Amino acid sequence: MATTALSTVADTCAAAKRASRVLARTDTAVKDATLAAIAAALEERTAEILAANERDMRAAGDLGSALLDRLRLDAARIAAIAASVRQIAALPDPVGEVINGHRLPNGLDVRKVRVPLGVVAVVYEARPNVTIDAAALCLKSGNAIVLRGSSMAAHSNAALARIAAEAAGLPDGAVSLVAGGGREELAELATQRSTVDLIIPRGGEGLKQALQAVATVPVIYAASGNCHVYVDASADLERAEAIVLNAKTQRPGVCNAAETLLVHSAVAPAFLPRIVEALRGAGVLVRGDERAGALVDVEPADEEDWGREYLDLTLAVAVVDSVEEAIEHVGRYGSGHSEAIVTSDTASARAFQLGVDAACVYVNASTRFTDGGEFGMGAEIGNSTQKLHVRGPIGLRELCTYKYLIEGDGHVRS
Amino acid sequence: MATTALSTVADTCAAAKRASRVLARTDTAVKDATLAAIAAALEERTAEILAANERDMRAAGDLGSALLDRLRLDAARIAAIAASVRQIAALPDPVGEVINGHRLPNGLDVRKVRVPLGVVAVVYEARPNVTIDAAALCLKSGNAIVLRGSSMAAHSNAALARIAAEAAGLPDGAVSLVAGGGREELAELATQRSTVDLIIPRGGEGLKQALQAVATVPVIYAASGNCHVYVDASADLERAEAIVLNAKTQRPGVCNAAETLLVHSAVAPAFLPRIVEALRGAGVLVRGDERAGALVDVEPADEEDWGREYLDLTLAVAVVDSVEEAIEHVGRYGSGHSEAIVTSDTASARAFQLGVDAACVYVNASTRFTDGGEFGMGAEIGNSTQKLHVRGPIGLRELCTYKYLIEGDGHVRS
Repeated sequence: MATTALSTVADTCAAAKRASRVLARTDTAVKDATLAAIAAALEERTAEILAANERDMRAAGDLGSALLDRLRLDAARIAAIAASVRQIAALPDPVGEVINGHRLPNGLDVRKVRVPLGVVAVVYEARPNVTIDAAALCLKSGNAIVLRGSSMAAHSNAALARIAAEAAGLPDGAVSLVAGGGREELAELATQRSTVDLIIPRGGEGLKQALQAVATVPVIYAASGNCHVYVDASADLERAEAIVLNAKTQRPGVCNAAETLLVHSAVAPAFLPRIVEALRGAGVLVRGDERAGALVDVEPADEEDWGREYLDLTLAVAVVDSVEEAIEHVGRYGSGHSEAIVTSDTASARAFQLGVDAACVYVNASTRFTDGGEFGMGAEIGNSTQKLHVRGPIGLRELCTYKYLIEGDGHVRS
Repeated sequence: MATTALSTVADTCAAAKRASRVLARTDTAVKDATLAAIAAALEERTAEILAANERDMRAAGDLGSALLDRLRLDAARIAAIAASVRQIAALPDPVGEVINGHRLPNGLDVRKVRVPLGVVAVVYEARPNVTIDAAALCLKSGNAIVLRGSSMAAHSNAALARIAAEAAGLPDGAVSLVAGGGREELAELATQRSTVDLIIPRGGEGLKQALQAVATVPVIYAASGNCHVYVDASADLERAEAIVLNAKTQRPGVCNAAETLLVHSAVAPAFLPRIVEALRGAGVLVRGDERAGALVDVEPADEEDWGREYLDLTLAVAVVDSVEEAIEHVGRYGSGHSEAIVTSDTASARAFQLGVDAACVYVNASTRFTDGGEFGMGAEIGNSTQKLHVRGPIGLRELCTYKYLIEGDGHVRS
């Protein structure tokens, strides 16, 4: 019931493993009732959460307004967290879903059935809301969760994790928070092969590299995105302008925002002046290659720009001579997240979708749609740019594995 | 065209990456024609393969008959390898398969489509036939393959890889063999994160541990199996006898053979004498716990027996008092491969299938059916006991990832 702040990391993970065996067999109705209880408790105990958050905010001092804003909770934000728990409760349960099945020629019946992974560890940075979002997704998918937040949000995270762990219907150890935000705890957590089935880091490149150096537990990197929009020779330029503006400016600080614009040389003279003016109007700094610079007055881009994820109002622009050249550029510099082509030509659309190796490849739409919620998966715990297990949004199904259930009447192999 | 025996590992993998981009877009008919050409070349160039194999056999000297038998090729074995290539060619192409898809409320069309992983490295031990089996599976699934065999089979593997790589229709680098069977090459191969998408080791625990120590590339362990058969109180004992005998003796040296028999105490007095006699008749050495020893005359089993994968004609036997106790035993000692219950009771069957955390859970059938061929997947490159990406047989689909293809008409996110 209580969170396990005093246990060692190994003890915490072992308790989570025991809890996971119970959770794997917990009915959907029971899990949903538990999530409803967590949502209600968040609202009822708002004062307790805000008091804990106030301690974190005071300790943080003047770390910069962006960071403080991520750390800060208020009644409205807690209500939003509770609402998202209720949304997750309302999603279909992925556990028990028959992925496929058939009768073999010898009469054996084989079903491939979705089951929870077991214990999922989530390692995250300042945002305390991740504590509850991640816990709700793991519980709904029948997994126990071990949380390791940043020390900066220690009091907020502890209050939130305690409320989740105390919800009626949960076995001991189903939700726990590893005390201590140090690298030692991270290394210990990342090597619990016998109890932890998966680690999902939610944070920047530093966290990713720290984990890569030590993890022996499987890791899914909810990674950053260097996303491109390519405007083809045949593009409708009005549509192209709307998509580029949306992909760059609608929320520049997220992984599915565009970082580079590629423009076909046939439309560059018409499109570049127009889009650069529109981007400037939206406060975007444009950095262009030599060919772009010959058409519009922009800062010169250098080799480094093509690989950068600005995560702010900066956009790199290059001129290319074909869809193949655009695919080549994306292949060299892209991070495999979300890539878009704007075109009216079916051959270009098909070439781009087949040739670009990324989680999400768009035709005539903004890269900003890469999101579990937008894709109808209901919620996500991050976006994967790796190829194994899950690519793109990590939703409830992706927090599961499967097993084969085989039924016979005395079948033996000959 | 030629294999890349003189290149460095990094160069070989980079060439494979370039080839993978071509292979990912190669039509099924072209891939199938290439596989047919490989099968024909294996038959036509049998003398060349046998001459290379003869060099390996001479160098191997007297390494033991089992090992020499694995290393040895003859005309019949080469014909069998060619036949398996033709079987793989005849399987459905997993690439391009739409896993699911739907229209979002905003009108965007989303399809989740199967695509190749890219470059798959296969690390294997003495059996030269793996060279061609693995290459055929990777090529059919649109992947380039980098092979790293054992130095003992170097000439055989080189001859086979050369024949595959020279087949018409393949881009340079599609099939390559890393020269040198040393740990340095293994470490270099296992750290080519920018070019190798997956490593599959096919070998024993030593190879697995060597890889775990160095790999930064994702690895799927085609792991060993400590499989159990549990005979429930309600089991039909004739059926139970047939299943236990089959699971233990039909092919004892493979990963889906049974290593431990669990018998419910209610049927142990009737079943144990009968099954022990039958097992002895089949040449099986039986090691039992104290309760089994009270009913039949067997060697005493110690704690170590429960965790062992004998891979030969030895079976450990324990008596349990319930299906829950059987599930608990399997949970503690099993390797998550294949587990079977023999029962006539629906409650026991359901409890065992829900409670056992393994790739394949059988009711009234032998564990020996865990196999891509048996499951109708056509062929497999191994069996996974891990939970991420693939569990159980690794077939053509499991050698793929997916991407989302999204189509709109100017959609932007609001």
